[in-house]
Amino acid sequence: MPEPVSIIGASGALGFGLAVRLARAGGEVVIGSRDVVRAEEAVERARELVPEGVFSGARNDDAAAASELVILCVPFRNQSETLHNLRDILRPGQLVVDTTVPLAAAVGGKATRTLGVWQGSAAQQAQEMVPDGVNVVSALHTISAKSLRDLGERLDEDVLLAGDIRADKARVAALLGAIEGLRCVDCGRLEMARLTEQLTALMISINVRYKAHAGVKITGLPDELWPPAMAGTP
Amino acid sequence: MPEPVSIIGASGALGFGLAVRLARAGGEVVIGSRDVVRAEEAVERARELVPEGVFSGARNDDAAAASELVILCVPFRNQSETLHNLRDILRPGQLVVDTTVPLAAAVGGKATRTLGVWQGSAAQQAQEMVPDGVNVVSALHTISAKSLRDLGERLDEDVLLAGDIRADKARVAALLGAIEGLRCVDCGRLEMARLTEQLTALMISINVRYKAHAGVKITGLPDELWPPAMAGTP
Repeated sequence: MPEPVSIIGASGALGFGLAVRLARAGGEVVIGSRDVVRAEEAVERARELVPEGVFSGARNDDAAAASELVILCVPFRNQSETLHNLRDILRPGQLVVDTTVPLAAAVGGKATRTLGVWQGSAAQQAQEMVPDGVNVVSALHTISAKSLRDLGERLDEDVLLAGDIRADKARVAALLGAIEGLRCVDCGRLEMARLTEQLTALMISINVRYKAHAGVKITGLPDELWPPAMAGTP
Repeated sequence: MPEPVSIIGASGALGFGLAVRLARAGGEVVIGSRDVVRAEEAVERARELVPEGVFSGARNDDAAAASELVILCVPFRNQSETLHNLRDILRPGQLVVDTTVPLAAAVGGKATRTLGVWQGSAAQQAQEMVPDGVNVVSALHTISAKSLRDLGERLDEDVLLAGDIRADKARVAALLGAIEGLRCVDCGRLEMARLTEQLTALMISINVRYKAHAGVKITGLPDELWPPAMAGTP
């Protein structure tokens, strides 16, 4: 059973899809939104899809305080402001999973193009903005929000993780691996989010061509992925 | 049967692996190298692996003139010089498949990091450098050279293509799709090479962790990939 989580921005497409999938896997989910009314509305929608799910709704700041594991699912244009607002809420020891994608769409550009982020990636920007003692793992950039939301859709794809602490990645792998059909792959240090975040734009470009909900699977890996064979490499 | 090709830099790992796989699929391959002696040596090695293969060896410039389809398999540090040397050799109508990856290793950095290329990607640099009328398709950045070379290894992965002309991509898809276990996916315009080239660094990072030869497969696509459903989109 996945550990309890809070999802910041869970009234959005990716956050909501993740909420219902995690709840169906047996996890408790705090659905965060900027507005508590929107959060409660999202909880209602989620309960319709997963009647047995354990959901609660909260404003993003209350949601961020409520769980040891916090998943950030806001658009890139809101990432900085959101983390700024949470700087006195997040506490050492919490783990933040960042799903932000710096799509050029954030500034009116194409969804198949990305923006350069000073820190290298949205995840590295997040790591810079959270309080000391809060670690960031980057994840979920190749997973279609719609595929998560449509519970009838059978998932069979990988989640690419990047982070500086092996134990954090293993924890996120256990959480997301509890969703049927998702497998987590350790892609290396947090700086590798520079590469994995770009994949959202690639998936969108492929989706346009094939009218699909594309995902990614890494081939050629051993059966057991956790912990990765190469000890000592973050 | 794949169409005849010339491979520039085919004494290198990726070029050589590609040469033997294409020859095994029935294609004629011109093995190009900077030095004709090294090209002939590579031909000998290739014939040992694929005795029925139709190989010939040539200096890179002669190789570039010999086929309508030319695959560029040189390290990033040699890409610009190589294309400069071929500027009077390549002719309108030829198609160049660029496999170059701007790894930071080219300037002594890590193979899990990439360099910024002014034009956006190595493939776009190639497109800028080839004569007018020569088109570039970007491909093969997620394919392990070692997996290609080891003919006993069963391939089951995708080749991500980027290019501005649909017919060119379909032609490359037919060529590389003739190799058993490879499927080509249209990822969009040539500018998408900015994203696909980065994946080599990601594969290397994953390989370090899992002692693997990782590749990529795109999930959620229709059975028939060529031509892509969305007509009118390059």
